[in-house]
Amino acid sequence: MDQTIVDRLRTIVGRDNLLTTPEELSCYSYDGTGRSFLPDAVALPASTDEVSAILELANRHGFPVVPRGAGSGMTGGSLPIAGGVVLVTTRMNRILEIDPANMIAVVEPGVITGELQTALKKHRLMYPPDPASLKFCSMGGNAAECAGGPSAVKYGVTRDYVIGLGVVLPTGEILQTGVRTEKGVVGYDLTRLFIGSEGTLGIFTRMILRLLPLPEKKETWLLTFPTLAEATATVSKILAAGITPCTLEYMDETVINLVRDQVPLDLAPATRALLLVEIDGTAAGVRDQQSRLTDYLNQHNIAHHYGANEKQHDAIWQARRSISQASFTLKPDKISEDIVVPRSKIPDLVAFTETLGRDMELTILTFGHAGDGNIHVNIMIDRSDQEEAARGEAARRKLFERVVELGGTLSGEHGIGITKQPFLALEVDPVALATMKRIKRLFDPRNILNPGKIFPDAAPSPDIPVDRSPPVE
Amino acid sequence: MDQTIVDRLRTIVGRDNLLTTPEELSCYSYDGTGRSFLPDAVALPASTDEVSAILELANRHGFPVVPRGAGSGMTGGSLPIAGGVVLVTTRMNRILEIDPANMIAVVEPGVITGELQTALKKHRLMYPPDPASLKFCSMGGNAAECAGGPSAVKYGVTRDYVIGLGVVLPTGEILQTGVRTEKGVVGYDLTRLFIGSEGTLGIFTRMILRLLPLPEKKETWLLTFPTLAEATATVSKILAAGITPCTLEYMDETVINLVRDQVPLDLAPATRALLLVEIDGTAAGVRDQQSRLTDYLNQHNIAHHYGANEKQHDAIWQARRSISQASFTLKPDKISEDIVVPRSKIPDLVAFTETLGRDMELTILTFGHAGDGNIHVNIMIDRSDQEEAARGEAARRKLFERVVELGGTLSGEHGIGITKQPFLALEVDPVALATMKRIKRLFDPRNILNPGKIFPDAAPSPDIPVDRSPPVE
Repeated sequence: MDQTIVDRLRTIVGRDNLLTTPEELSCYSYDGTGRSFLPDAVALPASTDEVSAILELANRHGFPVVPRGAGSGMTGGSLPIAGGVVLVTTRMNRILEIDPANMIAVVEPGVITGELQTALKKHRLMYPPDPASLKFCSMGGNAAECAGGPSAVKYGVTRDYVIGLGVVLPTGEILQTGVRTEKGVVGYDLTRLFIGSEGTLGIFTRMILRLLPLPEKKETWLLTFPTLAEATATVSKILAAGITPCTLEYMDETVINLVRDQVPLDLAPATRALLLVEIDGTAAGVRDQQSRLTDYLNQHNIAHHYGANEKQHDAIWQARRSISQASFTLKPDKISEDIVVPRSKIPDLVAFTETLGRDMELTILTFGHAGDGNIHVNIMIDRSDQEEAARGEAARRKLFERVVELGGTLSGEHGIGITKQPFLALEVDPVALATMKRIKRLFDPRNILNPGKIFPDAAPSPDIPVDRSPPVE
Repeated sequence: MDQTIVDRLRTIVGRDNLLTTPEELSCYSYDGTGRSFLPDAVALPASTDEVSAILELANRHGFPVVPRGAGSGMTGGSLPIAGGVVLVTTRMNRILEIDPANMIAVVEPGVITGELQTALKKHRLMYPPDPASLKFCSMGGNAAECAGGPSAVKYGVTRDYVIGLGVVLPTGEILQTGVRTEKGVVGYDLTRLFIGSEGTLGIFTRMILRLLPLPEKKETWLLTFPTLAEATATVSKILAAGITPCTLEYMDETVINLVRDQVPLDLAPATRALLLVEIDGTAAGVRDQQSRLTDYLNQHNIAHHYGANEKQHDAIWQARRSISQASFTLKPDKISEDIVVPRSKIPDLVAFTETLGRDMELTILTFGHAGDGNIHVNIMIDRSDQEEAARGEAARRKLFERVVELGGTLSGEHGIGITKQPFLALEVDPVALATMKRIKRLFDPRNILNPGKIFPDAAPSPDIPVDRSPPVE
């Protein structure tokens, strides 16, 4: 990168907020995929105008700008695969407004999702999306990838709560989308076009959020099953019984064995699968749902632990949240996918991954958001074993092919980034794909904003090895 | 229109499905705005391939195609203002699939919204959006305008339930967007880009819908107030009291006087405003909400009618649904707006319209979806009185200016069409507007699909007088 450009960037963001030493660059070179690419510089702007000035410069000189929040993405969305500038939003981390009367908040993109949720609790308000990374992921990245989480089964995902965006286009132009009201249908829905666009169409500098009243109460159950098939078949039945959980998570046997030692759950030895069920709402509403659920469980002889007190509740959640880290005790690497299938197809999908694991001689874990069909499939591998890595990749393709056959989708919450690009055409038809690429070209004619993401159209710089922090799903 | 084009159109849709006589054309010349423009031809295709062939022909020869569902739109979205072909979807009216296990339905665009809801009830399922026109409006139009309805306060609007679309682009190309799963973040969100695009970016030929379980129970209250201010201030307070109604509608004094004679509601003479409140959910959930609401009403001495039996319930809804028709007893014409303000600003907005009506010597009714701040403002005029019509238009501009000052939006559910075009720039910033126009040009370079809608870029053919059926909101 030309020294005059580096100097211009330094002028824009200030001396302390432009990083160029190898050690500094390395800190912003990786994400949750465990892959790493060195940028030429890292800029930490503090305002919309600074973001605009950086993009205007990039568009003029043709260098890549890669937006990055907390770097916790799972598909490479924030990796500088073609070098250039990593634009980090961590300094733009103010909660600008909480409006309880209208249940609206306005935040900057660097706000940590969990910190926003804590701040809202004081007002008895809730921002529902709850990715497992909520303690460190940021709101801008959540919007860029359209993050989900366990509560999506009841409350939906990021696109359902972001109703307006302040955006800087790749040209440096600044625009405001959406509304700060519950409804709004004026012109095209640019807000949702930007949400889930993985940082390829614009950089968010302001977000208007709709909020919900904080539920008064929440109760947690852990259901245990002697077979996987019984657990997965129970998912649809719980919903059909008039129960609307705010969490309906599933864990297979390999996952249970991983977390069993770490968390004092006191499971029967024959337990082969778990469902984690949470119900929230008003006290009376929860009581009603609770009695329906226990009726159902008793009728069907389903053993369960009830997280009546905070300690049991925490133990159950500790188990769920420790899966991703614990999985690395099996193999040093994983291919981690967040496929979705129609709920009724979960048993088929899970049976398929069992067979796939056996046939391909791979350990495959399945767990995650069974309530909405969004299953995390982790194919455990050792990348240093090239033959095993190749088998892992072959298994991944078979998995995606089966998911699409079942009427599902490649990604429920992680996006395409770089890791799923080879499989995009399995799901998206050629005309839709061409339309998306035309939209990218319209917004970013010089292809300077996060080039090579979603659609393979940038030659990435060489992959470099790096220390990996285990990602969280 | 050239005879050879007419012949080609007739070949595409079949002799009986291309209409060209003046009487036939007149039937498809108007919508809920009461305005009318004659098309050159009306085509009623029966399949995606026929829609594609029509658009391919139009794109080659450069004639306008205007998609039309039931013609019940409120802003002129389906009016052939530049002539050409009106493409009517009424023959594409099949419910293709209802999948109770996955709570998904697949429908063609000509399906009547209310008929879908009736069909779903048999499966104990619900498609929530409920525009007041639901007995005759169609699903394609609902998606094109992103229709709402009273239940939006709890359940959201059309964009929250349409998860995938079969679309024909203005070039005739066919594509499929979205998913048939609860989640999906693969590529850009083309589905929501099309929803609310008012028939300017593509014609929908298939819609994938997510559904909810049908609530077990629903209860209705009518709250009566001695002043308007008390009624509007109560809206936010009900929500803050932990009550989540599925309907929270408001009617002002003029509206009450309109419906009082028609519906046996037995209101106290001093009643100056009404709130219609509905609560749905499980039996226990409704019981709980019901006791919260009655506690609140008793504490604040708010008089109410409780629609305990079906007859009372029906009387209350008959009153709500009769407003639009009854309003024409005041004046032969109206300027009907569906503005939205942040909920806490409803008292300001309603006080403003009272003053506006007095100052401008106009009768202005306000009613509608108070729960989400979406207030229907009807400025009653006689268009044959040019001076009064001009005063009405002046009042409308003042209304929109005030709405934007209050942080609101010009349209909650009707869209821009042709009627709100002069005011678009009050709300949408120049960069956002330019971006929308660029998207329109990208999708429709020859501007053949519904030209002149949202953005003023087609010279309309002359307005012709026509018999008007009163529109419904």
